[in-house]
Amino acid sequence: MKKLLLQLDSDKHPSVFDCITAYDAGVDDVLSYGGVALEDVRNLVYGAMFTRGGEDLKNTAIFIGGSDVPTGEAMLKEVLNTFFGPVRVSVMADPNGSNTTAAAAVRKITGAIDVRGRKAVVFAGTGPVGMRVCTLLAKEGAEVHLTSRKMERAEATCELIKSRFGLEVTPHQVADDEAARAVLEGAEILMTTGAPGVMLVKEEIWKANPTLKVMADVNAVPPTGIEGIKPHWDGKEKEGKVIFGALGIGGLKMKIHRGCVARLFEANDLVLDVEEIYEIAKGYQ
Amino acid sequence: MKKLLLQLDSDKHPSVFDCITAYDAGVDDVLSYGGVALEDVRNLVYGAMFTRGGEDLKNTAIFIGGSDVPTGEAMLKEVLNTFFGPVRVSVMADPNGSNTTAAAAVRKITGAIDVRGRKAVVFAGTGPVGMRVCTLLAKEGAEVHLTSRKMERAEATCELIKSRFGLEVTPHQVADDEAARAVLEGAEILMTTGAPGVMLVKEEIWKANPTLKVMADVNAVPPTGIEGIKPHWDGKEKEGKVIFGALGIGGLKMKIHRGCVARLFEANDLVLDVEEIYEIAKGYQ
Amino acid sequence: MKKLLLQLDSDKHPSVFDCITAYDAGVDDVLSYGGVALEDVRNLVYGAMFTRGGEDLKNTAIFIGGSDVPTGEAMLKEVLNTFFGPVRVSVMADPNGSNTTAAAAVRKITGAIDVRGRKAVVFAGTGPVGMRVCTLLAKEGAEVHLTSRKMERAEATCELIKSRFGLEVTPHQVADDEAARAVLEGAEILMTTGAPGVMLVKEEIWKANPTLKVMADVNAVPPTGIEGIKPHWDGKEKEGKVIFGALGIGGLKMKIHRGCVARLFEANDLVLDVEEIYEIAKGYQ
Repeated sequence: MKKLLLQLDSDKHPSVFDCITAYDAGVDDVLSYGGVALEDVRNLVYGAMFTRGGEDLKNTAIFIGGSDVPTGEAMLKEVLNTFFGPVRVSVMADPNGSNTTAAAAVRKITGAIDVRGRKAVVFAGTGPVGMRVCTLLAKEGAEVHLTSRKMERAEATCELIKSRFGLEVTPHQVADDEAARAVLEGAEILMTTGAPGVMLVKEEIWKANPTLKVMADVNAVPPTGIEGIKPHWDGKEKEGKVIFGALGIGGLKMKIHRGCVARLFEANDLVLDVEEIYEIAKGYQ
Repeated sequence: MKKLLLQLDSDKHPSVFDCITAYDAGVDDVLSYGGVALEDVRNLVYGAMFTRGGEDLKNTAIFIGGSDVPTGEAMLKEVLNTFFGPVRVSVMADPNGSNTTAAAAVRKITGAIDVRGRKAVVFAGTGPVGMRVCTLLAKEGAEVHLTSRKMERAEATCELIKSRFGLEVTPHQVADDEAARAVLEGAEILMTTGAPGVMLVKEEIWKANPTLKVMADVNAVPPTGIEGIKPHWDGKEKEGKVIFGALGIGGLKMKIHRGCVARLFEANDLVLDVEEIYEIAKGYQ
Repeated sequence: MKKLLLQLDSDKHPSVFDCITAYDAGVDDVLSYGGVALEDVRNLVYGAMFTRGGEDLKNTAIFIGGSDVPTGEAMLKEVLNTFFGPVRVSVMADPNGSNTTAAAAVRKITGAIDVRGRKAVVFAGTGPVGMRVCTLLAKEGAEVHLTSRKMERAEATCELIKSRFGLEVTPHQVADDEAARAVLEGAEILMTTGAPGVMLVKEEIWKANPTLKVMADVNAVPPTGIEGIKPHWDGKEKEGKVIFGALGIGGLKMKIHRGCVARLFEANDLVLDVEEIYEIAKGYQ
């Protein structure tokens, strides 16, 4: 029986990246659906739930992608609401690669330093990847600080993390170099998760910081979020810091992504969201 | 050479159910097209007709689905009009599962009773499944009665069956319990094919009827069309009647659906509509 | 690792023909995208470029189809602009079958006659296939003449061929039988590439021409572009001329199409446009 993956994507065209990655994870055929609205989800999921039965159900699974992360999150809820009892299939949510990217970044950081009790600062942490990185670092026991140019946005994200995961993250407004320098005082971990093309931490700032030990950034396209680093750096040591660029993280992200998709077909009741994906990520480095 | 199935679906998103079922029937790859308008059909069919030749043509086939049954019926006509001579591929029409569901229901009924000359009443028989159930029961020699809340709709459906299949079905207006009780007098077979969520025959009515021997319903979601039965009943005997619920019928429907799709690839000139699907259904129980 | 082909098509529904042909060329799975706008291309190509790396990149390729040839040409440019350095995949452009059809037609002609220095007239040569046939014949050393009902259109196409390929083609206005007869004086090769349903050269004209040796037409649906010939003729000799109809050419076109798609997966840096497709076509007859 073929392993079939139902790819649900809210973008006009379903992600080519997610589709190819699924094939490389061992899926026999991907059923790609683009332009999926929230109200379309139920019927599509019924088609996945009701076609195969019993032991065979685990050969069908659902992947939720799309560049719009809040919509992807809402789609996951709708998928879970559509299942009833044991009549369900496994599902993985990774809209815009947010979960696998965050898991890979935190795996890189925890592979370089024991984060427990250490101060970690996530710059521009209000987006999907940043919020997930904060969550995973906090779960690992780090003392996590999140920055945004606007205090309200930083606070809102911290409250969301608190309500959803029960974890404490401290919000900071950082809109200039002085504030950046201040928030990094005593920090051992620096991560930037800003929009493409925005440089968040100047080279002179991180070089002058004596406590920083590990730095990571997710921008593949110049300028990088941390000035003076290269996207392909994958644990490069410079000025006493271990540094990970977007491509260094990206290689691991890809392995995690494939590993999670493969895992979907081992049972019919898995729900792979940020925490579960991070658990699976621990098998990769 | 791969077995390829062209799935034509008038819904925004092509049916996941039909697609997975096709893979389970042995199709190598499904070419799923959603949002197919009648005027799109010709070009899509040309692509299926003209790519492979001779003996190879039978490795391509067409499946017409979609929740809108009249559109699916019009699409089948358009597909057949597009073929010319031996340059054609096999095609199966099963919009909204109407043909396979009707075939499965009638197979269940005929497996439980010899319907020849027996009175059968199909409640709310004006929809796609009901109209097909009436047709197949009449073909099997039953004396078929069709009910609707409105006499004009009942008559129109009976006339359609007459003109399309040359079979006699008697229309009845049934809008209350009294009429339901009356139309069931002397009936041995009761089938309900109403909209989801509409209860059509009260428990007290069918229990009090001494002649009824077989009952079937196609509503999987409560309330069932026949009060007091369960969707998973698959030939359960109660009060002297043999009863089939929607899931009992559904299991057989799935086998028939898969069997028909597999059959498509045995020749390049099959046209599987309600009658042909019912013939194939005789190989399953 | 599966051979995956990303099919980009500007039509509402991606071509069934192109998809089936890809499977028959050995592609494991086709990722079919319809309704692709020029601005969608970059993201789709990123998905194809960034999922697999190094040696594996050659297992992903891109096919550009669609009935709108100028859009397909613009899409090819956009695809090439999206690649950077060695991070790329092979790509084939064949919008509306224009490249493979032209290559097949010219292969048929050059198989029947040594075209070097011979006068060739391409009627209604301003469309995508005609423009490509003129180009390939000129590259093979023929003295090529292109006709149109309007001189400006003929001239514009010749200028396009000059600027894009550096080849000389002579424009002619041909709007009546007298002009048709005149332009064919001394010609040995006649090809018609007009719109379906338009007869361009009367039987009495080509039969009365003593120099014509080879004739070809691409209209499968009557009337043919050259009066009195049959679409299935594949080198038939009549009145001293060797004649190719649309289906005769079409069989070779299909082989070339499949051969080119198969070739895509031999390296990750191929760009198959009209000239490269014609080179590959030389391996088929």
